[in-house]
Amino acid sequence: MITFDHLIAVDPGKAYRLMNLGATGLVSAEHNGVTGMMPATWVCPLDLSPTRATAVIAKDHFTRPLIEKSGYFAIGVPTVAIAKELFYLGSVSKNEEPQKLEKSGATFFTLGDYRMPLADGCLGYLIFRVIPEPHNEEAYDLFIGECVAAWADKRVYSDNHIDFSAVDPELRTLHYVAGSHFFGLGDEVKGLD
Amino acid sequence: MITFDHLIAVDPGKAYRLMNLGATGLVSAEHNGVTGMMPATWVCPLDLSPTRATAVIAKDHFTRPLIEKSGYFAIGVPTVAIAKELFYLGSVSKNEEPQKLEKSGATFFTLGDYRMPLADGCLGYLIFRVIPEPHNEEAYDLFIGECVAAWADKRVYSDNHIDFSAVDPELRTLHYVAGSHFFGLGDEVKGLD
Repeated sequence: MITFDHLIAVDPGKAYRLMNLGATGLVSAEHNGVTGMMPATWVCPLDLSPTRATAVIAKDHFTRPLIEKSGYFAIGVPTVAIAKELFYLGSVSKNEEPQKLEKSGATFFTLGDYRMPLADGCLGYLIFRVIPEPHNEEAYDLFIGECVAAWADKRVYSDNHIDFSAVDPELRTLHYVAGSHFFGLGDEVKGLD
Repeated sequence: MITFDHLIAVDPGKAYRLMNLGATGLVSAEHNGVTGMMPATWVCPLDLSPTRATAVIAKDHFTRPLIEKSGYFAIGVPTVAIAKELFYLGSVSKNEEPQKLEKSGATFFTLGDYRMPLADGCLGYLIFRVIPEPHNEEAYDLFIGECVAAWADKRVYSDNHIDFSAVDPELRTLHYVAGSHFFGLGDEVKGLD
């Protein structure tokens, strides 16, 4: 059983901070009960107040038409704790494996009134409404979303600050290079202020 | 004196890997001898073969008109070694401090035939030609560039792979949250393949 005691709501005007570290994202969407989830390294904040973000979702991904039809997508910010599940979700397409999500080993849930699946083990979860930009979507596979709700793991995120110093290193964000090469985030750089 | 023995040319079709980790970028441009440089956390790969990337550059930045007039910008991928210099470059605008670059403490150089300043101490350097998208630039401050040349630090990057395991932790990438809070990249996650 999954509990949500560790999640707190985040102001959509501050939610970009969950993405600033540049971690790989876990993009998901839902339409008429059909769900999709895929890692996307090319996700990036675009604006604040409220948070907007870009996400590059190629045309062959199962999740893309779910975003196009529903007008919504979610970005989870995975931690090292679910690296294996994330790697599976990025290695298999639901176009070939209808049971992809179930077989990933991840635990899924939803938050608020939103029905896209979210994977347990993320630092944060952001829900985006698509701002339609047909040229960007067609020419660049680039989607723009505006954050309508967000949640974060309060063990790491509180008062809109991120602090990994007191938690298991498994709760740090996950950064992708290529192939099966992922890095965890390291320590804060001290002495800058 | 700065030497370039540690830099190797990178295939623009592979250069996105230098940005995949999601590190803060160091954006620079030059026009008619006028130079600007600013950290930009909101930079992200957009495509490969060749690498394209997005960069969010707000209208009040000194560097923005240099990009608009020249049609080019560079993205450096800074390491922890230049965290202080980068923090200064992000805290001061050349609109108020014409000697900003000189006062940053960073060491600058250029590569190839490109005249934008590059700061010593980056994992890689990517040169982009702007793909004009006036709507994106005006509505979202979003610039799209296509990589025309790239270089990387061969101590970390070789055969298009990134390996920090044998180098000083200061050569790892820098990841920004907010305020003066930066993190260095940690270790590779093993056992995924």
